[in-house]
Amino acid sequence: MDERIEVSVLIDFYGNLLTDKQNKIMNLYYNEDFSLKEISEITNTTRQAVYDIIKRCHKLLVQYESKLQIMNKDLELKKAKKQLIDRLNKLKSRQSDELYDNIEEIKQYVIDNI
Amino acid sequence: MDERIEVSVLIDFYGNLLTDKQNKIMNLYYNEDFSLKEISEITNTTRQAVYDIIKRCHKLLVQYESKLQIMNKDLELKKAKKQLIDRLNKLKSRQSDELYDNIEEIKQYVIDNI
Repeated sequence: MDERIEVSVLIDFYGNLLTDKQNKIMNLYYNEDFSLKEISEITNTTRQAVYDIIKRCHKLLVQYESKLQIMNKDLELKKAKKQLIDRLNKLKSRQSDELYDNIEEIKQYVIDNI
Repeated sequence: MDERIEVSVLIDFYGNLLTDKQNKIMNLYYNEDFSLKEISEITNTTRQAVYDIIKRCHKLLVQYESKLQIMNKDLELKKAKKQLIDRLNKLKSRQSDELYDNIEEIKQYVIDNI
């Protein structure tokens, strides 16, 4: 995943663990694409302080993900959901005599992955 | 959920955000059912300090859950998984002429809930 997009997703998952000010600055920088200078003016904070906050919070978000894996588990779940929908579409197009085994297979997939 | 069980589950989800010592004390207290006195001896910490750590970490874990909702989302997902398996079992026992609609219904359930 592109680093900028990854941080943006991490903000969605872990932003609540940041302070309101940190959260605001991270959103302005990563989601609304403001420059350090613009953020400095909007938040009435020095450019250097904005830079430091972004750097520190980026590190914090990566640490939270390494400890809790919410983003990673969400990606895995999205993959499982897609797989499940694909399997149900496949099942719909098949002959009904194969149905029983196919459904068992999907159930096993749910048990193992969801 | 019983409070003791709830804290035990919260330790599973958020224990990595605690320090090693905090994590150890919380596990000894909530998962292995040791007394404050026993934990004090095992960890070479005063009984009062053990008590304070348990109280502070309990509060921390509840705060993490209120901000991230990992436990709550996991419970919802477990419910959805059970629902999905129930629906597949039902589908298996039905006549095949109802099959198409039933599968569409399950797909919609996956789209809305997983």
